[in-house]
Amino acid sequence: MSAPTVLKLGGSVITDKDRAETVDGRALARAADAVAGHDDLVLVHGGGSFGHHHAQEYGVSTSDGTHEVDGVLDIHNAMKALNGLVLRRLHERDVPAVPVHPFSAASRDESGGLTLPAGQVETMLAEGFVPVLHGDVVAHAGEGVTVLSGDEIVTSLAASLDASRVGLCSTVPGVLDGEENVIPRIEAYDDVADVLGGADTTDVSGGMAGKVRTLLALGMPASIFGLDALDAFLDGESPGTTIA
Amino acid sequence: MSAPTVLKLGGSVITDKDRAETVDGRALARAADAVAGHDDLVLVHGGGSFGHHHAQEYGVSTSDGTHEVDGVLDIHNAMKALNGLVLRRLHERDVPAVPVHPFSAASRDESGGLTLPAGQVETMLAEGFVPVLHGDVVAHAGEGVTVLSGDEIVTSLAASLDASRVGLCSTVPGVLDGEENVIPRIEAYDDVADVLGGADTTDVSGGMAGKVRTLLALGMPASIFGLDALDAFLDGESPGTTIA
Repeated sequence: MSAPTVLKLGGSVITDKDRAETVDGRALARAADAVAGHDDLVLVHGGGSFGHHHAQEYGVSTSDGTHEVDGVLDIHNAMKALNGLVLRRLHERDVPAVPVHPFSAASRDESGGLTLPAGQVETMLAEGFVPVLHGDVVAHAGEGVTVLSGDEIVTSLAASLDASRVGLCSTVPGVLDGEENVIPRIEAYDDVADVLGGADTTDVSGGMAGKVRTLLALGMPASIFGLDALDAFLDGESPGTTIA
Repeated sequence: MSAPTVLKLGGSVITDKDRAETVDGRALARAADAVAGHDDLVLVHGGGSFGHHHAQEYGVSTSDGTHEVDGVLDIHNAMKALNGLVLRRLHERDVPAVPVHPFSAASRDESGGLTLPAGQVETMLAEGFVPVLHGDVVAHAGEGVTVLSGDEIVTSLAASLDASRVGLCSTVPGVLDGEENVIPRIEAYDDVADVLGGADTTDVSGGMAGKVRTLLALGMPASIFGLDALDAFLDGESPGTTIA
């Protein structure tokens, strides 16, 4: 088996941010069209309008947790519902997609460090399936349950699976400079600190500063691009911003 | 945290074997009543009338697999539906139950050996939740996807979590001798080979011979008992048959 591609479909790309628990049907169909026919692929999708409002309601973030079962299940079930809708669109295009719910596999230690075992994903890939993970909740030592972001899943899996390529399909065509032009390549955070904010920028929602920092630490090339460029990325090109 | 108890609720106990995808509401309510108020507890339930007929339809067993996504999802979704019904009964009794879907966590190697990471379950337990796992499908090297039985999950978790006690709540009050009396204690398979069949007995459905063999290999005391004795087991007694 060749090294897989890890592709994240941003939650804001595939859902309607302004309406609770509503997919953006056209965007999701375009993404599913692009994915069809590609293999050695792991998909991760964010929560968008499915997970975020439940997380806000219960005051749960990647660091602040809850022990309330109702909160845990509201967030988890909303994310599973979105995952089911994504799977359905993929199955309609004969993509052999199977669900992997991170809450069933992952945990955090007391300092928030994530363990996401990847043997199940490796075996699914080797057997020809396309595993589809999603932003979720995660059991967190000392906190109960916290949020697990799609971006964290992407970087954890990319390292565990020794991925050949990492792609983040976003609502923007790449990392933008002060004049709204795509920055083609970023090799150090200092290159973009004046555009994205300093190293101490708060970025709880998984915004661009956090993505760039995390991808720089990954040690393999990653691309951030828009939905228009998803076909190009899956065909082996490096659209948008390359972070290496 | 003290060492947890791993309790299996047999699929035949909590579902109506004769009707597809139907729970035995009274039995499930009794089990949920018994569980309420106990902690340091991991629950595992079998498939009963939810999983088995789909598995049969696609010719999938613990050793013979499928690469058909429809088959994988039919079995997996049926088991998740049953898990949701079990969780609902537990939540009605304020049990802080959370789902753990084994297909999202486990894998088998080419010889069928199971890896089921348990860090998520350990963290859930430490945070006061009651993890509820279930018989499921599992990615299996060379086979696609095979069945993962509740009994396999119980023995894997009991070892990983260094459980203090293991209980199998079954449709019978224990392992029965030739005269339908419960055998109180089994310390070697030879003790019961004349009742359960020789060491080469085929036992694909996870019947009693397989359970006894697996529990003997576990190296910690396990109890097999009926629903009438579930309260006694959870109160620390050793009803039915003790396998040690």
